Amino acid sequence: MNPELKARIRCEDLWEKVRSAREASSYVEKGMTLGVSGFTQSGYTKAVAAALAKRAEAGEDLQLTVYSGASLGDEFDGVLTRAGALKCRMPYQTNKDLRQAINEGKVKYVDIPLGVMPGWVRNGYLNHIDIALVEAAAITEEGNIIPTTSVGATDTYVKCADKVIIEINTSVPASLEGIHDIYTPEPATNTQPIPIVKAGDRIGTTYIPCDPKKIVAIVESTKLDGGVKDVPIDDDYRKMSQMLIEFLETQVREGKMANPLPPIQAGIGGVSNAVLQGLKESSFEHLNVYSEVMQNSIISLIEAGKVDSASATSITMPGSMLQDFYSNFEKYKDKIVLRPMEISNSPEVIRRLGVIAINTVIEADIYGNMNSSYVGGNRLMNGVGGSTDFAGNAGLSIFITKSTAKDGKVSSIVPMVSHVDHSIKTAHVLITEQGIADMRGLDVNERAELIIENCAHPDFRAPLKDYLRKARVLSDYPAFPFSTEANDIFRAKYTQG
Amino acid sequence: MNPELKARIRCEDLWEKVRSAREASSYVEKGMTLGVSGFTQSGYTKAVAAALAKRAEAGEDLQLTVYSGASLGDEFDGVLTRAGALKCRMPYQTNKDLRQAINEGKVKYVDIPLGVMPGWVRNGYLNHIDIALVEAAAITEEGNIIPTTSVGATDTYVKCADKVIIEINTSVPASLEGIHDIYTPEPATNTQPIPIVKAGDRIGTTYIPCDPKKIVAIVESTKLDGGVKDVPIDDDYRKMSQMLIEFLETQVREGKMANPLPPIQAGIGGVSNAVLQGLKESSFEHLNVYSEVMQNSIISLIEAGKVDSASATSITMPGSMLQDFYSNFEKYKDKIVLRPMEISNSPEVIRRLGVIAINTVIEADIYGNMNSSYVGGNRLMNGVGGSTDFAGNAGLSIFITKSTAKDGKVSSIVPMVSHVDHSIKTAHVLITEQGIADMRGLDVNERAELIIENCAHPDFRAPLKDYLRKARVLSDYPAFPFSTEANDIFRAKYTQG
Repeated sequence: MNPELKARIRCEDLWEKVRSAREASSYVEKGMTLGVSGFTQSGYTKAVAAALAKRAEAGEDLQLTVYSGASLGDEFDGVLTRAGALKCRMPYQTNKDLRQAINEGKVKYVDIPLGVMPGWVRNGYLNHIDIALVEAAAITEEGNIIPTTSVGATDTYVKCADKVIIEINTSVPASLEGIHDIYTPEPATNTQPIPIVKAGDRIGTTYIPCDPKKIVAIVESTKLDGGVKDVPIDDDYRKMSQMLIEFLETQVREGKMANPLPPIQAGIGGVSNAVLQGLKESSFEHLNVYSEVMQNSIISLIEAGKVDSASATSITMPGSMLQDFYSNFEKYKDKIVLRPMEISNSPEVIRRLGVIAINTVIEADIYGNMNSSYVGGNRLMNGVGGSTDFAGNAGLSIFITKSTAKDGKVSSIVPMVSHVDHSIKTAHVLITEQGIADMRGLDVNERAELIIENCAHPDFRAPLKDYLRKARVLSDYPAFPFSTEANDIFRAKYTQG
Repeated sequence: MNPELKARIRCEDLWEKVRSAREASSYVEKGMTLGVSGFTQSGYTKAVAAALAKRAEAGEDLQLTVYSGASLGDEFDGVLTRAGALKCRMPYQTNKDLRQAINEGKVKYVDIPLGVMPGWVRNGYLNHIDIALVEAAAITEEGNIIPTTSVGATDTYVKCADKVIIEINTSVPASLEGIHDIYTPEPATNTQPIPIVKAGDRIGTTYIPCDPKKIVAIVESTKLDGGVKDVPIDDDYRKMSQMLIEFLETQVREGKMANPLPPIQAGIGGVSNAVLQGLKESSFEHLNVYSEVMQNSIISLIEAGKVDSASATSITMPGSMLQDFYSNFEKYKDKIVLRPMEISNSPEVIRRLGVIAINTVIEADIYGNMNSSYVGGNRLMNGVGGSTDFAGNAGLSIFITKSTAKDGKVSSIVPMVSHVDHSIKTAHVLITEQGIADMRGLDVNERAELIIENCAHPDFRAPLKDYLRKARVLSDYPAFPFSTEANDIFRAKYTQG
């Protein structure tokens, strides 16, 4: 056995469980439900997935149901989809091939708010977990699991599974140990308050508790996460970031927001990168992050001395940046906490901390409804992810989108979104590169006028105003001037789908 | 001074503040924002509202903004609307005349989830409160306020107001003192866990803290609450109640739910009455209620020895039942807790307790989106109230509607709701008199088939199936077969609005 692998399996009784990926994969049988590690293409298993894909490619009908934290890399979601091994996948994905298979009806997909999923599994609302499949940095003396770069729902999957298969990734530094904080709530009739009062508070163990008797196989893996695409910051993103920061400065000046700010939640991608980059150059100090994902721009904010603590359920970045991150890891380690997604996305903690939630959407309507998941109302993009958990409970819920899509040909601001993920009740502020609409305390009419004026692209303001005028006449209810008729005229001309 | 009134103003320094309603109303000036007590037509002020209405009727342009807990009785919302004294009203209402004025665009209305509203006021996201107008059972030696039959957001309004006007209702028994539990969270950067772990836990004071210097006037009032309409239990409601109880029994049997059950939330009206009546006759024992409103059927469950504790932010019932309730009050007193609506509707506590949320809706669609607030997408019914707080965070989120409206002429189950208050992510179970659809773990296709088969009225199953067939062809995305075209054909024929 590779001495590095041996050193990382600190429970010596488990040495005899070391297997090849092919051997380990033999525990997986047709129709099983796997609870797998991994969140935003970070900390997912690679070797066993490849072995399973091989079996499926050789003609085996696997019909697997896979529950994860969130999106997995192509080495998992991609290979298993292309091999036809997946029957059902939840609660989130971002893989191109998987998305297509879902949209074609070949793989069943259920969108569940990420903070809700683990409790549902423990309650038995979903399938029983046959096998937990977990990437780990090490196994402790007692057989407990040190995760790698994400926690997701792994604590729950390990707890509920009949069997556990572990991939020890020897390319990931063993020094990751210590950044995790594992806390799994007790069942409903005995649940206690989650005692987090500051973003960086530690309330649990540094390992995922695991009965070593459940561990049936340990596989070595050496492949680092593929990571996410690096979305460059363009001028539009920069504008949105500047507006957001000026808005937050105004909130502080008007006494509506504390300074240091409440913790920030931001997703992945160009907008988030720009916002976090902007904060680096802003006057704000002692920032905190309470988010589901910690991307490279947060690491760079920590490096700049701007962030006191950053809490998430996963660290993710373009693969090319990973080695550099690991080389400098000791510089960030004491400021980083990785929690189960049930805690990173907990309504309780998000409301308590007054989190500033920043989420991007596919389209927004003039009333303030938001569509995060289905293009044209029927084509899945990624899923709703954790945005429900955050927007629904944030101290301030901000949504961001470019005002147009498809090279300016269609408007992202529409009369009525084709699918509602966030209603007018949980969207407080909308930002596009055109401007900002602070919707707090406004009725639907005031919202409509403000969003058209401030957020819609100039090319689409006239047709949107025209819609609103028609809707007022057609609906005969000026308090909520919505009309399907007028909506359809607009949709046919100016929207994606 | 009436000796009963004198006895209830235990802070003797305040005796000199006793005024007529007309005198007290003189503190209210044009354009002011009032923060008023009252929730579900319970515990609202009557005398000062009448005096204000008189001023408006005499030609004064008052332009008042009124923030309440939730709906107020006709002696407040009705008289002020008819007198033209209201400019803006939030966050909820149920008054016929007010509703019409809102729909005609004469009164501005903003729907804010009830659990969110108080924090927004304290943060300064909404208007500053000029005057808090509060119905009380008594004033303590220190000048603190003992509310009557509701708490709502009164703790926050009193805290934030420049001036406080109190109506002491001498018809309400002074023995109400002791049932309130007032706990107002600290601001965002210092918020602590809300330490409720059982529905009946007491964590605060029995009074609303008030600086007596802010009290500018005290008015005697003797009118009891008008109360809510008594909706009789019909056969459909009885069927829905039976299905719900059988469903909960199955959940317990399958180990998906604890027994004693997690606390129950139920609204007002026929369905809730039927469900609570049904629980009385069920095998369930040691029930608990964690709701926003406690109606007479809960009182009757307490009487039957079925309920260990009942927590809400208001007690409401038909006016005719109030005297009887007060006469027997000592029998229930130790089982009842009235909290601020921020706590009764707290995402933190609702998620922690695993509340079973039961909410009624105007219409549901075959995918599981719910419309609670706008008929036809543009005509306000009441508002979203607390359903966002409960459905979004419940252990189990159940929605109930009759399968048809308007004497069976239109279907309440539609291809796509005309307004989305609760998305497919926060609606877990749908019940109509036709049957039950347990949507947990189902994708949108499975949901659509199940809801049409189990919940739609037989008269509308064929057109709904026809829609689904068309949508599959037209959308070309079998994973979410939604089509606006096919939707419009259905809407034109079979829906309300």
